[in-house]
Amino acid sequence: MAHTGTKTDGTQSRVTADALERFCRDVFAAAGADTPTADAATCAMMHGSRLGIDSHGVRLLEHYVKALTHGRVNPKPKLNLTQKGDAAATLDADDAHGALAAYTAMEEAVKLAQSAGLGAVAIRDSSHFGPAGAYAHAAAEAGVIGIAMCNSDSFVRLHEGAQRFHGTNPIACAVPVPGERPWLLDMATSAIPFNRIQLYKSLGQKLPPGTASRTDGGDTDNPAEAEMLAPLGGKFGFKGAGLAGLVEIFSAVLTGTRLSFEIAPMFGSDFSTPRGLGAFVLALKPGAFVDEKAFADGMTRYLAALRGSTARAGGTVLAPGDREWAEADRRAVEGIPLDPATLEAFRRLADRFGIEMPRGADA
Amino acid sequence: MAHTGTKTDGTQSRVTADALERFCRDVFAAAGADTPTADAATCAMMHGSRLGIDSHGVRLLEHYVKALTHGRVNPKPKLNLTQKGDAAATLDADDAHGALAAYTAMEEAVKLAQSAGLGAVAIRDSSHFGPAGAYAHAAAEAGVIGIAMCNSDSFVRLHEGAQRFHGTNPIACAVPVPGERPWLLDMATSAIPFNRIQLYKSLGQKLPPGTASRTDGGDTDNPAEAEMLAPLGGKFGFKGAGLAGLVEIFSAVLTGTRLSFEIAPMFGSDFSTPRGLGAFVLALKPGAFVDEKAFADGMTRYLAALRGSTARAGGTVLAPGDREWAEADRRAVEGIPLDPATLEAFRRLADRFGIEMPRGADA
Repeated sequence: MAHTGTKTDGTQSRVTADALERFCRDVFAAAGADTPTADAATCAMMHGSRLGIDSHGVRLLEHYVKALTHGRVNPKPKLNLTQKGDAAATLDADDAHGALAAYTAMEEAVKLAQSAGLGAVAIRDSSHFGPAGAYAHAAAEAGVIGIAMCNSDSFVRLHEGAQRFHGTNPIACAVPVPGERPWLLDMATSAIPFNRIQLYKSLGQKLPPGTASRTDGGDTDNPAEAEMLAPLGGKFGFKGAGLAGLVEIFSAVLTGTRLSFEIAPMFGSDFSTPRGLGAFVLALKPGAFVDEKAFADGMTRYLAALRGSTARAGGTVLAPGDREWAEADRRAVEGIPLDPATLEAFRRLADRFGIEMPRGADA
Repeated sequence: MAHTGTKTDGTQSRVTADALERFCRDVFAAAGADTPTADAATCAMMHGSRLGIDSHGVRLLEHYVKALTHGRVNPKPKLNLTQKGDAAATLDADDAHGALAAYTAMEEAVKLAQSAGLGAVAIRDSSHFGPAGAYAHAAAEAGVIGIAMCNSDSFVRLHEGAQRFHGTNPIACAVPVPGERPWLLDMATSAIPFNRIQLYKSLGQKLPPGTASRTDGGDTDNPAEAEMLAPLGGKFGFKGAGLAGLVEIFSAVLTGTRLSFEIAPMFGSDFSTPRGLGAFVLALKPGAFVDEKAFADGMTRYLAALRGSTARAGGTVLAPGDREWAEADRRAVEGIPLDPATLEAFRRLADRFGIEMPRGADA
């Protein structure tokens, strides 16, 4: 069972967050990334891997190394922040890793919000965004409300459309809550992500209704004939498509960068040309609108009412983020699971750069 | 066929926008509202009636008159704007009509955005919001991007929930487009509005799947047993519920006002107690992030690509607002239709205040 990621007892390899983080940083450094890049990219992937959002977790490491070493992503970028008003700035990211651009932009948005009440930064010439929630979360950790969004290469049809038009165009929002982890919404504006189709295909299962379409735009529940994703909302997909449009306008039009259908595919063969992605972040200081204590009490009261509300039979009522924070608690104890393909990639990287595998991943 | 709103030839009464607007203003004035209140309330209702959003159109006139004359809404409010930062302000609306509060707040947000790049105003002690798109649209008319949102009395369950928790909590966003009407998204975060259930009931039709629930939270397609609405997204209703939560946090927690389940029902019997609603508006100046011409060109290019994209068989691809602007063009020529109940209410108001009915409504 060597090199499969599954131990001989049938369990998956699990590693501690610390060991995983160390490995990612070492790999990035060995691949030629500067420290800010290694820190930001690791931090964003670890957000995904800690919270159970594995599609945006450490499985991206090998992909990022390829992008950083082949010219698509600049391993030593010179980021250029320009303030354009008391609450507005732009960030020319010099083809930086998307996480470095997004964390840098959010840090600036938070500063603007601390002085002006709110702040926003339009990002251009960036690359793969990673988990939108990571950057919103960074704002909440600093005590303010954060919103982060990004367009991406086309996978999603319009309402009644028959071609890939928008990306999955995620929106994330994080709100600080006293004494606990933030309220954290992180959602694609499609019903499901594209890798869910691959998962259903490998499991031989039908797709949920209204989530994917054939090449003619008609609905399909067969993952093998799914050519594009449907916008969130099914019959009311004009709402999901409208939200995707909002993200598109903020991330591409307001940054002067590429529309989703103009973006080179993330997994395309060209790893030497920068993809020129845009993104947008916004921060709001609660104390600029209402007494800080009233805001904190309000969040506590709202969340207590929500979590205490009646669920339907067999269901559970959760606030955005509750599922992810519970998974983070579990993983803090049990370790972070590594799927076979990721473990295989780690072995390649460890060999190539002469770096020790994270402890626990060597079964 | 007198007093039914349907002419003897079977057609509905239609009136011009000008005649309708004059009638509304005269009624508000006669009911004791000051000019700013009459102007704002008329303007917001006319947005609904012009664009075909009749649930938020002039059918609300009699309801508003009752609220203004019984103490729920202050007919001569003293609004108090307080700037809290270069980009942030609050508006204490003194129980004003919701449209006066929202237009006033958006006007201030636009001013802040013009100087600081963006601006936001938290509204408190307001009343029924009306069409969220009207206020976002006002920002776009001033050349900036506008976002408006409001929570409202509980009608919508949480994902997997079995009680009314959030309101239909709409979000609207309007973006200026050179040479044409704004891109205009105006959506409830529930799949359908509550009055759609009443419509399906009166038509004897089944509800679309995943839009409404029985008292136990289970799905129903029978409008007669629909006790609550489902959040947008069906199986992925955690996204709709998350967006409703975002609106709730911005409109209620960030304004220090009531959560949806604490708000007295709009159509409850108490018309003498102010409802103390909160709301939130945000404006962004495109030129603070990107060259104004690049933004304008980008919107034109994006919309041309969207409208020119392939539709599926029998479908039509539209940008947010396209359907509503086309309806506005139709109504500008054919007049605005008045349903029988609204026409009946107009007759009562005309009699009561000694005001002439709008021309065309007297068939």
